[in-house]
Amino acid sequence: ESRLPGYATHQVGVAGKRGPRGGDCLWINWYEFLPNVWKFPGGLSDPGEDIGATAIREVFEETGVQSEFRSLLCIRQQHNHPGAFGMSDMYLICRLSPLTYDVSVCPHECLRCDWLGVAELAERVDATPITRRVASLLRYGLEQGFSSVDLSREDMPAVYTGLIYQLYHRKLPPGH
Amino acid sequence: ESRLPGYATHQVGVAGKRGPRGGDCLWINWYEFLPNVWKFPGGLSDPGEDIGATAIREVFEETGVQSEFRSLLCIRQQHNHPGAFGMSDMYLICRLSPLTYDVSVCPHECLRCDWLGVAELAERVDATPITRRVASLLRYGLEQGFSSVDLSREDMPAVYTGLIYQLYHRKLPPGH
Repeated sequence: ESRLPGYATHQVGVAGKRGPRGGDCLWINWYEFLPNVWKFPGGLSDPGEDIGATAIREVFEETGVQSEFRSLLCIRQQHNHPGAFGMSDMYLICRLSPLTYDVSVCPHECLRCDWLGVAELAERVDATPITRRVASLLRYGLEQGFSSVDLSREDMPAVYTGLIYQLYHRKLPPGH
Repeated sequence: ESRLPGYATHQVGVAGKRGPRGGDCLWINWYEFLPNVWKFPGGLSDPGEDIGATAIREVFEETGVQSEFRSLLCIRQQHNHPGAFGMSDMYLICRLSPLTYDVSVCPHECLRCDWLGVAELAERVDATPITRRVASLLRYGLEQGFSSVDLSREDMPAVYTGLIYQLYHRKLPPGH
């Protein structure tokens, strides 16, 4: 039995976690529908759920690791997506920091799960191109500071409705 | 009669156009449903349409200006969006360059349309907070180079399906 979602509108991946061994590592896993391919944990947003909340929830459900949101790293738009019944799919990859480290794999969702170094992952041929790319972003962020790759999140007031929305963009220096 | 869309999944705004007077200016307009508020042209993606294609098409439909895609600047997530029948809405703001400059306002969609300087727009009280913020991003990009605010677009191959997807993130230096 698989709990993989039947359709998709927004998927949210997770990357950039600091590993349990003191080194900077990634949390990834292995899905049934893509055997032998390493990818990030993640899944579909519930209706009305924030991007970061989805990422935190999905990582916990799939791996047992608790984490907190740091930034938005990458956006993918794909048309005729097989996992979205041929509809367009928007896939958002977030950077999280772990609050716990022990792995508890959900057997319905993934076969294997481990911490890997971003430098190693960026070069692995059995990772997807987007996984390698995000690993390269993280490696660059570790070298140069994450402000070089992050999109910051800010709550903003909506005009007229009184609601709050979340805005993601390159962080501007103070005074700009 | 209004041609405003009845519901929304992804909206796409447009910003960062170079004006007709040689200075760096913004293309914005004025919608019926938000009188007295300046905002960017834009609208809803057609099914299967790329973010950049939507932006170019909507700018042309609303203003008559032809343009080309440069980058993704900003992402907004808003829940209970009035224009999306209470659903969550993802709003993506692109930076375009104009290929033509003459304005031809569509009377069904906007009341007024003009080129404005980004420095002026960033300070206008009759612009929405997100408009002022994007104007500030553009002003900073004009000062420091747009690589300081842009998310670059790249076509990537999808594993197994042979399809192409678009990836947006901070541009990495060569070799990273």
